[in-house]
Amino acid sequence: MEDKAQIQEAIKIQGEVVRKLKSEKASKEQIDEEVAKLLQLKAQIGGDDGKHQFVLKTAKGTRDYNPKQMAIRERVFNTIISCFKRHGAETIDTPVFELKETLTGKYGEDSKLIYDLKDQGGELLSLRYDLTVPFARYLAMNKITNIKRYHIAKVYRRDNPAMTRGRYREFYQCDFDIAGQYDGMIPDAECLKIVHEILSELDLGDFRIKVNDRRILDGMFAVCGVPDDKFRSICSTVDKLDKMPWEDVKKEMVNEKGLSEEVADRIGEYVSLQGGMDLAERLLQDHRMSQSKQACAGLSDIKLLFSYLQLFQVTDKVVFDLSLARGLDYYTGIIYEAVLTQAGAVPAPAEAQKGAPAEESVSVGSVAGGGRYDGLVGMFDPKGRKVPCVGVSIGIERIFSIMEHKAEVSAEKVRTTEVQVMVASAQKNLLEEKLRLITELWDAGIKAEVMYKKNPKLLSQLQHCEESGIPLVAILGEQELKDGVVKLRVVATREEVDISRADLIAEIRKRTSEA
Amino acid sequence: MEDKAQIQEAIKIQGEVVRKLKSEKASKEQIDEEVAKLLQLKAQIGGDDGKHQFVLKTAKGTRDYNPKQMAIRERVFNTIISCFKRHGAETIDTPVFELKETLTGKYGEDSKLIYDLKDQGGELLSLRYDLTVPFARYLAMNKITNIKRYHIAKVYRRDNPAMTRGRYREFYQCDFDIAGQYDGMIPDAECLKIVHEILSELDLGDFRIKVNDRRILDGMFAVCGVPDDKFRSICSTVDKLDKMPWEDVKKEMVNEKGLSEEVADRIGEYVSLQGGMDLAERLLQDHRMSQSKQACAGLSDIKLLFSYLQLFQVTDKVVFDLSLARGLDYYTGIIYEAVLTQAGAVPAPAEAQKGAPAEESVSVGSVAGGGRYDGLVGMFDPKGRKVPCVGVSIGIERIFSIMEHKAEVSAEKVRTTEVQVMVASAQKNLLEEKLRLITELWDAGIKAEVMYKKNPKLLSQLQHCEESGIPLVAILGEQELKDGVVKLRVVATREEVDISRADLIAEIRKRTSEA
Repeated sequence: MEDKAQIQEAIKIQGEVVRKLKSEKASKEQIDEEVAKLLQLKAQIGGDDGKHQFVLKTAKGTRDYNPKQMAIRERVFNTIISCFKRHGAETIDTPVFELKETLTGKYGEDSKLIYDLKDQGGELLSLRYDLTVPFARYLAMNKITNIKRYHIAKVYRRDNPAMTRGRYREFYQCDFDIAGQYDGMIPDAECLKIVHEILSELDLGDFRIKVNDRRILDGMFAVCGVPDDKFRSICSTVDKLDKMPWEDVKKEMVNEKGLSEEVADRIGEYVSLQGGMDLAERLLQDHRMSQSKQACAGLSDIKLLFSYLQLFQVTDKVVFDLSLARGLDYYTGIIYEAVLTQAGAVPAPAEAQKGAPAEESVSVGSVAGGGRYDGLVGMFDPKGRKVPCVGVSIGIERIFSIMEHKAEVSAEKVRTTEVQVMVASAQKNLLEEKLRLITELWDAGIKAEVMYKKNPKLLSQLQHCEESGIPLVAILGEQELKDGVVKLRVVATREEVDISRADLIAEIRKRTSEA
Repeated sequence: MEDKAQIQEAIKIQGEVVRKLKSEKASKEQIDEEVAKLLQLKAQIGGDDGKHQFVLKTAKGTRDYNPKQMAIRERVFNTIISCFKRHGAETIDTPVFELKETLTGKYGEDSKLIYDLKDQGGELLSLRYDLTVPFARYLAMNKITNIKRYHIAKVYRRDNPAMTRGRYREFYQCDFDIAGQYDGMIPDAECLKIVHEILSELDLGDFRIKVNDRRILDGMFAVCGVPDDKFRSICSTVDKLDKMPWEDVKKEMVNEKGLSEEVADRIGEYVSLQGGMDLAERLLQDHRMSQSKQACAGLSDIKLLFSYLQLFQVTDKVVFDLSLARGLDYYTGIIYEAVLTQAGAVPAPAEAQKGAPAEESVSVGSVAGGGRYDGLVGMFDPKGRKVPCVGVSIGIERIFSIMEHKAEVSAEKVRTTEVQVMVASAQKNLLEEKLRLITELWDAGIKAEVMYKKNPKLLSQLQHCEESGIPLVAILGEQELKDGVVKLRVVATREEVDISRADLIAEIRKRTSEA
């Protein structure tokens, strides 16, 4: 429990912070954040100015899912999980927080975005930043040397949220990874096959999967004359090419990162290249590139990869793109990223808007990404034993945003329950009979509802069915009870038939079976 | 980034803490915890004594789920979700953390168990402690006055973990709640029906659902002579009756809580009572109890509840038990708790062991609980508008523990994938043909695997099938390719038949359909 005087002191300081920001004309967002903090402090000592200043909201960058969103989410998950299972994956789960040091040194510059837990005694903990590092920790801890697993769970990043574009501080990742010492590029190709299957099945419009290799990037930097200690930093500049034109990227390389114009231009020539197996062949003959052993290893693997992709029949969407860099530190070989290339029912993706993406539209960038990380598990193993891994992560929040938008603009009504039949009555005082009937239905596995009123009006019972898409109503009345029947009403057609009690369950099943 | 000197200072202080605890002969657990913290600090500045002191573990009180545990978890969830859906529930999701003040003042004494996030700038956040308070926040924030929803998600408590008994710091809750102004006890009775259905379907052995009412407890305390300001405190003492004999509970009431022996004995008489509708009737006539309006309201509702439970055919397991108290502050009416009463394949529950539960056995206490909380939503509404709610939470971790134990002791083999067929080869150099075939299978929705080796031995391919329970093998060889067939092998019987490529998919479907 914190001391009241302490809190009052904190309120004073926080008040100063807010005043300072306002006087400095800081951004609205920054001010709002500090004001919220102030209100929270005030609430802790119980509204010192008479009224309770309660902020009724979710944490910044997070959201609730309402039943409609959940119905869409469930559908998307089912598609993705079916695909993972089709490829023989098991699933695991790990805790939402890890020891802080488990995450330390895995994310490079992005480490500042990790959420830490307060030190309340005991271990120092952080919320997971992705599912890959916990997976590597899991493998090392349990001495697992091969596994094909998927993991669907939320991860946490103290990033600048852009919720309308599906960028949150709490968001789902759907990861599929293959760990083990295998013959080259077979698991890598399967990961791309999986991305292809999922994006095709979700029907999000046309897409492209860009492929590159960390060794090709590093080799390219070397032969272009980038100093060794600038590889990572230049890599992250190249990574901006999907959001910035080459001119700006070059400027950053020269002005901020200190490359010579000449070196930058050499890089510029390479990163503009896109192709398939043929491009890999050509670069293997390239007088500069062929001097790098690393690059050649990467290029040979790209060739092998494309030969498998041909067998998997997915080369139509895959492109070898030397500008693909990807930020994360832990990749060691092939890397890839899928982007939607076509609007369809969806507003144009950020790329098409060149530098000024409108905050309000549902524009999305990459919807899947991954690569090979052969060193990560070894970082956790006491003896440094390596377990080669390759994996892919589906950017599900962006996909949700698109699906939600699609559902909104289409006439399609999203059902949020699966109720097959409503047990209703036409007259008063039939609650007991309705409860008896619904018990029979539930016990037979029928999804059924009854209103929690003793004497609801028939009209309001029927209205509820219309609103929530319940297809059938089982109506009880004095006469029906006498005759041992139930009046079964089809909501859509208003057709009504008397069904004997003995046949009711079979009749409901027949009328609501999806076949 | 923290300063190195700061960390070194922290290491010095933490070293003192450990030395002090050791000299004081503190508990092993306490020392271990502080040592772990010391090692973490040391790891931050990179192993100052030459070797890296990395602790390869999950956070205290948390665990990973391996694929086998996940398969069991999925089965349990499916049973529970089917039941919730059968009763017409929608589902929602909320973020894992809430504004700290959202949780403030909702959990009474247990508030100290809430995990806070570190203040890294921005809002003050805490991990959710249950799903009920976020649900109430959601209703108030979205001005929802009626909904029937389920929510399955992890919650967090800095409690003393007892992992072998299924008590964790991170654990799942499966909540079903009905919000809305309805006629008395109909939704309440449905919650109990749901507990009955779920526990029956999970086949955990015999169980009992204890029912009581906060108003009966409060009324009872009043007529027994407990001062108003001691209701909550005495309530939490009564709550210990399932773990302690009455003598000890009485001692606590008299010695620690300051009740007179006489008052304690009066309470003792009531809390020993168990029954059904008849007991509620009797207590309505009781000379002391009948003086409390509150108690009478509660007793009448218990009577009404039992009349609905009769219609739902669940009275065989439900018992009105005046000793049931339940800890949480927010309950206002009926409360209930389900306990397993029979060992079966499971070691005896804690109750049976009277005071000295063995840490190592899979003993479980309550597996479901809930009640009515009519005031909680109003605490969030700016105008205090109430939304009556009743709900139940399934204690899923304890159920997982039991199911895992059952799977261990039974011969049953838990499959962790759903793969229907393995694409294999009898000779070398057939990788391309295998990839071509598996592409056909995947594209037809067949769950299939191939080994990631160019030339695996047939024996190792067959062994993999045996180990992971894959029922069929599609074997390719030179001869089969020439003949346009595939050799389909049934793993269990070793039977082999040649199937033409055109019929393969249909044949696999036929042989692996569950019907």
